[in-house]
Amino acid sequence: MTSSYIDLRSDTVTKPDAEMRKAMADAEVGDDVLDHDPTMAALEEEVAHTLGFPAALWVPSGSMGNLIALMLHLRRGDQFLAPEHSHVLGSELGTAAWLAQGMPMALPHDGGPGRPSPETVVKAAGSPGPYFTLNTTLLCLENTHNFAGGAVMNPTEWTKLVDAARSRGLKIHLDGARLWNAAAALDVSPTELTSGADTVQVCLSKGLGAPVGSILAASPELITEARRIRKMLGGGVRQGGVLAAAGIVALRSQARLSDDHDNAQRLASGLRERGWAVDEPATNIVLAATADPSATVAQLAAVDVGAVTVAGKVRFVTHRDVSTADIDDVLSRLAA
Amino acid sequence: MTSSYIDLRSDTVTKPDAEMRKAMADAEVGDDVLDHDPTMAALEEEVAHTLGFPAALWVPSGSMGNLIALMLHLRRGDQFLAPEHSHVLGSELGTAAWLAQGMPMALPHDGGPGRPSPETVVKAAGSPGPYFTLNTTLLCLENTHNFAGGAVMNPTEWTKLVDAARSRGLKIHLDGARLWNAAAALDVSPTELTSGADTVQVCLSKGLGAPVGSILAASPELITEARRIRKMLGGGVRQGGVLAAAGIVALRSQARLSDDHDNAQRLASGLRERGWAVDEPATNIVLAATADPSATVAQLAAVDVGAVTVAGKVRFVTHRDVSTADIDDVLSRLAA
Amino acid sequence: MTSSYIDLRSDTVTKPDAEMRKAMADAEVGDDVLDHDPTMAALEEEVAHTLGFPAALWVPSGSMGNLIALMLHLRRGDQFLAPEHSHVLGSELGTAAWLAQGMPMALPHDGGPGRPSPETVVKAAGSPGPYFTLNTTLLCLENTHNFAGGAVMNPTEWTKLVDAARSRGLKIHLDGARLWNAAAALDVSPTELTSGADTVQVCLSKGLGAPVGSILAASPELITEARRIRKMLGGGVRQGGVLAAAGIVALRSQARLSDDHDNAQRLASGLRERGWAVDEPATNIVLAATADPSATVAQLAAVDVGAVTVAGKVRFVTHRDVSTADIDDVLSRLAA
Amino acid sequence: MTSSYIDLRSDTVTKPDAEMRKAMADAEVGDDVLDHDPTMAALEEEVAHTLGFPAALWVPSGSMGNLIALMLHLRRGDQFLAPEHSHVLGSELGTAAWLAQGMPMALPHDGGPGRPSPETVVKAAGSPGPYFTLNTTLLCLENTHNFAGGAVMNPTEWTKLVDAARSRGLKIHLDGARLWNAAAALDVSPTELTSGADTVQVCLSKGLGAPVGSILAASPELITEARRIRKMLGGGVRQGGVLAAAGIVALRSQARLSDDHDNAQRLASGLRERGWAVDEPATNIVLAATADPSATVAQLAAVDVGAVTVAGKVRFVTHRDVSTADIDDVLSRLAA
Repeated sequence: MTSSYIDLRSDTVTKPDAEMRKAMADAEVGDDVLDHDPTMAALEEEVAHTLGFPAALWVPSGSMGNLIALMLHLRRGDQFLAPEHSHVLGSELGTAAWLAQGMPMALPHDGGPGRPSPETVVKAAGSPGPYFTLNTTLLCLENTHNFAGGAVMNPTEWTKLVDAARSRGLKIHLDGARLWNAAAALDVSPTELTSGADTVQVCLSKGLGAPVGSILAASPELITEARRIRKMLGGGVRQGGVLAAAGIVALRSQARLSDDHDNAQRLASGLRERGWAVDEPATNIVLAATADPSATVAQLAAVDVGAVTVAGKVRFVTHRDVSTADIDDVLSRLAA
Repeated sequence: MTSSYIDLRSDTVTKPDAEMRKAMADAEVGDDVLDHDPTMAALEEEVAHTLGFPAALWVPSGSMGNLIALMLHLRRGDQFLAPEHSHVLGSELGTAAWLAQGMPMALPHDGGPGRPSPETVVKAAGSPGPYFTLNTTLLCLENTHNFAGGAVMNPTEWTKLVDAARSRGLKIHLDGARLWNAAAALDVSPTELTSGADTVQVCLSKGLGAPVGSILAASPELITEARRIRKMLGGGVRQGGVLAAAGIVALRSQARLSDDHDNAQRLASGLRERGWAVDEPATNIVLAATADPSATVAQLAAVDVGAVTVAGKVRFVTHRDVSTADIDDVLSRLAA
Repeated sequence: MTSSYIDLRSDTVTKPDAEMRKAMADAEVGDDVLDHDPTMAALEEEVAHTLGFPAALWVPSGSMGNLIALMLHLRRGDQFLAPEHSHVLGSELGTAAWLAQGMPMALPHDGGPGRPSPETVVKAAGSPGPYFTLNTTLLCLENTHNFAGGAVMNPTEWTKLVDAARSRGLKIHLDGARLWNAAAALDVSPTELTSGADTVQVCLSKGLGAPVGSILAASPELITEARRIRKMLGGGVRQGGVLAAAGIVALRSQARLSDDHDNAQRLASGLRERGWAVDEPATNIVLAATADPSATVAQLAAVDVGAVTVAGKVRFVTHRDVSTADIDDVLSRLAA
Repeated sequence: MTSSYIDLRSDTVTKPDAEMRKAMADAEVGDDVLDHDPTMAALEEEVAHTLGFPAALWVPSGSMGNLIALMLHLRRGDQFLAPEHSHVLGSELGTAAWLAQGMPMALPHDGGPGRPSPETVVKAAGSPGPYFTLNTTLLCLENTHNFAGGAVMNPTEWTKLVDAARSRGLKIHLDGARLWNAAAALDVSPTELTSGADTVQVCLSKGLGAPVGSILAASPELITEARRIRKMLGGGVRQGGVLAAAGIVALRSQARLSDDHDNAQRLASGLRERGWAVDEPATNIVLAATADPSATVAQLAAVDVGAVTVAGKVRFVTHRDVSTADIDDVLSRLAA
């Protein structure tokens, strides 16, 4: 008997569904670099509204959204703060340094999983010393925090960190690649998780399932500059409306993210029953500690289950293309 | 009576046709950043083959394709040569300098429209002097050359420039955003226009009509590095197969570019009959000299004809969404 | 009664003595950018020999020496490792990121004051993951480590860290701005503290007292490239022999650094007797913890004693222009 | 009979005289990075006054002065204008692009030797087009212009170019490495040649003969930022007063530059009498066209005369260490 492959490596593997495909085929388009693509504009407006911002810009990837945000906020040599193991620190090939010209300082997760305490932010922001000193100008947060196991920051925790950063004159960027998961887990509006930020990046192509694209939200002035930077990086696209159309459909699927979270709980429970050391999942990410994570991933691959190693653990990610039955199937394959 | 807008501003405004839209809707996809998107891979393989290269990489825009090529070839401070008014010099927001770290030297079009002579290349490549000297390491050519009026370089002319560059140890990048037009105008295989280059960039979204995307062709080693740079710039996309599917359809429409060239001739003739000073179009671009190009563009807009100013002239571009009847319509509007 | 100012802010305040001044006045010079300055060449050769390297290059400052080293070793986006509070991380205005394009990872001082453990180096160097990953290519160490209170790394500790870095393929740069102090404190040859490094930077203008200049030592190939980078940064000077002459004199004063270390001990003891919480000084730097370091520095200034705050403490630095009597004078002023 | 070497390669080879050496030996110094070096401050103030500016900063080289100026004026991707063959374009290893992030546009010398016409500046500054366009923000001029044969721009010509640049909102940087020669040749105050510039760089180490150093003059605000950038580049030095003292002496020798100009005339006349094709020297630089400049330089070296090739010609530079008798000696060696 052959089992089919169950891909829990990442929620980036989600594929566009029939509705998105139809939307792409029917999309009204224009030239978004030269002047205007109406579907793109509609998507940008809708996401801006959803996040509580006056303006937004489509970008081909979350990495580009984060990069543009850093470029907006940093001048050469400025120091920025981010929790350890943030995506901007370890998963964007050093662009924060070599391209956005920022000097990173990694902060401990002493405020809770995936986030520093407000006191740590204040202390790290520092103050001028006797010599020429680094200017610390930006705090980057990540919600949910991927490598902290999809950890969620709630509105109260977020607001305290925003206040701490503001008290030292820092700008704030939120990497909200999985902000939708945080909002679903907390059952709050996304705006409660973005209030006070200067820039927010959200992905349409992870849990929501759009094939391509992320959105950067900010003030109209910053978005005008961001559009120019996007052109510099080569991220401006022509008839992008075909992708935006899928994004608009994807946005409507936020509610179903709770299913992914339930499946993550189910997987975690099942693994624990089988003796695994598993962190309690807050959203759709399950981290398991094993003696040799790489070997574990290989063993999982042998039974057609996809997982990866991150931060010294085995990571499973649930998503729209994995059903509850698939989770049970994974668990039974592990039993075998 | 209201006329409809006839958009001759650029061939970037072309919209995907029904066949492309269907292909997008039906595309088989994967996660092209994480591991593999089969439709993307098929497109890359087909374009590589068409251009006579062993490997290729999809990028969201021609600007990103050119930028990655410069980044592959240049080390900090290297000088590169390009004909005056090249896209990499004037139309990519200085990324050649600030991002690829290259020092440009603009060469005169003394070899013909849009290209330097081989002697000029050899002389500009220079030789070490008594001090620390600039390293000249790259020649960038553009075929067709946009701001020289869609000027075409034929295989003989190309080969002489390649030989001149090689004689001084230069690498060669070809910005072939409209290479398809050059091949159609000359009735030669694209491979005759790319032979000897280290990297070639071609666009799927101009005359060919795909909504989004360009391709960079090179050696497998360079493409591996290019894939990493693309990730750095944020140009890696997830289920890019939806776009690649449209690109595969677009590739099959190379033959019809001759219609655009015929329409450009028709427009040029008609304008001349009306007393305009018009360069003889080599492909799908018509440049007209007027006393005040900006004013002319405004007058054209008043009769719902889109044109732009480039290089101090008025530019019209013919493309798949403009018919011969549209050209005649433009001419009659001008007569009115 | 007026006291004179006793400047313990840094050993960078040391002034050239009469012998250095005479050497400057008598120096044989040439044009060191155009071709050759004989005194500069003699200094570079002598320092290279002293450090056990085949080649060396004069630079105007330690910051430039460290920067050139990072530029030699890093390619865009490479990650480098350095102990927390290293000079390259916090005291060079972010040039490691914005100019050398490196992504820093700060390591804890879990191997002893001012240095990570070999295990931490190995772990931080990491291994390729499922996605595109950062390349970690360089370990930067600092001996003595300034912000760890002039902490010394001995040859055994150094060698273990070199071996750990090598086992992961890392290059090694040693910021030896105060390497002379480490060698004096340990009573070993500087070569025992540099063996295995790819590049070493040492300062002539701190404890040794030359007015201007540092030296970067490396292989002849790296020094050739470093000379080009120095020209890029604007650090090539013409008749630099006047400064090199002072440097040659300064080099001969290594033995007297022990006096500075004795004075640091004397100051630390005296402060402790007065109830201060003082770290045991390993070389010429005394760190004292006070309730409000900035206030303490202001109080010291009021009695004409110069100190600064670093890393949340009050720092005193002894040097050639401060005598044992001066130290006693400081202590009596504090008693008053 | 052996002849001694007569070095006409550059005026950078000038050596400090006895008065400068004494000044260095006697200089009062401080720590110019930490807080203050009184001799450095005196030099900066004197040069600022001489150039008609409120503030100035010492830098180790003219290259660093120009680089800092470009960094002050340019943001990533900004285009700047400079006459062809300017030092910032061809002799600074591409730092204008890779480090100051500027996109250069070389202007023809259609306004006279070494300078564009005001009309060319206005045209090149351009105006926004239909797409994202390059921002042109800076005009760099060079007086005297080295590779144009030490060509001089007089106050009227300078003012017209300043006005042209201002009319398009451009900033203005003057590379005045040999501004002293221009002022001496025109018999005007340097302030007449700098009025209206945002930044001016002058060298102390060429015709004036100081061993090391250039000065950047600007507004106090720009100089504050320049001081930070200088620290970034590693150009801050500690007891720099030893060099500044020599600079102060050097400044007083401006009058004798006329002797160098007379010697250049004498050399040019003598060469012409011997049948050489020689440009009329405007200052201290003599350019001669020969069939094979490299071969000519080698032949000159064989009779112990130093010259170099620049811009396809043979260049001789007169300076304080070359007497009229030396010039006659050179001419007699050529006769032999």
